[in-house]
Amino acid sequence: MQRCHVTGSTVATQKAAGLTGFSLLTVTPVGGGGELVAVDLVGAGEGDMVLVAMGGAARETDQTRGVPTDAAVVAIVDPSR
Amino acid sequence: MQRCHVTGSTVATQKAAGLTGFSLLTVTPVGGGGELVAVDLVGAGEGDMVLVAMGGAARETDQTRGVPTDAAVVAIVDPSR
Amino acid sequence: MQRCHVTGSTVATQKAAGLTGFSLLTVTPVGGGGELVAVDLVGAGEGDMVLVAMGGAARETDQTRGVPTDAAVVAIVDPSR
Amino acid sequence: MQRCHVTGSTVATQKAAGLTGFSLLTVTPVGGGGELVAVDLVGAGEGDMVLVAMGGAARETDQTRGVPTDAAVVAIVDPSR
Amino acid sequence: MQRCHVTGSTVATQKAAGLTGFSLLTVTPVGGGGELVAVDLVGAGEGDMVLVAMGGAARETDQTRGVPTDAAVVAIVDPSR
Repeated sequence: MQRCHVTGSTVATQKAAGLTGFSLLTVTPVGGGGELVAVDLVGAGEGDMVLVAMGGAARETDQTRGVPTDAAVVAIVDPSR
Repeated sequence: MQRCHVTGSTVATQKAAGLTGFSLLTVTPVGGGGELVAVDLVGAGEGDMVLVAMGGAARETDQTRGVPTDAAVVAIVDPSR
Repeated sequence: MQRCHVTGSTVATQKAAGLTGFSLLTVTPVGGGGELVAVDLVGAGEGDMVLVAMGGAARETDQTRGVPTDAAVVAIVDPSR
Repeated sequence: MQRCHVTGSTVATQKAAGLTGFSLLTVTPVGGGGELVAVDLVGAGEGDMVLVAMGGAARETDQTRGVPTDAAVVAIVDPSR
Repeated sequence: MQRCHVTGSTVATQKAAGLTGFSLLTVTPVGGGGELVAVDLVGAGEGDMVLVAMGGAARETDQTRGVPTDAAVVAIVDPSR
């Protein structure tokens, strides 16, 4: 997975049927690489540090099986103390 | 997914049978990385900001199952107000 | 898919059984990124501008199902007039 | 696979159900590219040089089948003598 | 596939069960990009120029089906005359 900062969200009225109902988060990988848009599976929001699963991994959950997404927010990283 | 600008279209008379009938859009990722060619699933056109699903995600729709494409335009991003 | 120039071909006598009988083309992506070797599905040749499908997409054709390749030339781009 | 240094671990209380029970290691590829977070399958720890399998390969083990991860530590590289 | 130089081999005593028995070669892509570790399917050795299949393609052979690897050496490139 990639550690990413959630930087915002994306609104798309016109989309493939399978994407309906998902929150689409804009995320930026901490390890470098450009901005991505990922479906949210854990209730993350702007400012959170999250883990994003890419590729087929994004579809290995009950919510996302068969959904045309290549990225999913699968965890919120605990703030370090 | 990657946010991309649609910059044009690609015409290919000679192609694998599975690609017949698709509009092939040329897109440039906002987050960096080179130009891609993606099948259009949402009626996007030049100038639109879209979401492109890569890899197996591009084939997780009724139209694209079994199609030899690794990229599909799956949403048109709403213009911000 | 990636728009690529076909720059040559690769000969490999010793190879995995599944690759036997394919023409292996050396291609360079127009959008950046290094040289790739792709199986040819459309009769492309040196100098052609082609579309290359990467990953599982390369195996979504009758000729390539079960073949250990991650890249296939799936279209020849029409020259612009 | 990619040779990586294990540089730490990541704690995420809130996560997709399938990730429960895995140790999440932060790793940096020796060959370049940014930091990744991978599930540990071999008891690796900080300072180890490991092999990380990416994509679907990360889910080709009994422990990870159906788990929403795109990276798994699948080997610890023997120190060279 | 990627044309790569075989630069050495990697020894890992502690590894996922599926990797047992494979020769793990360290390879460097000619087209750029960092070092990779790939299972050898064709008897390649240091100094050889090879083709490496990445992702699911690496598991589309009888030897590698179900093996947690994302890279396999699937051909040895003939020396050019």
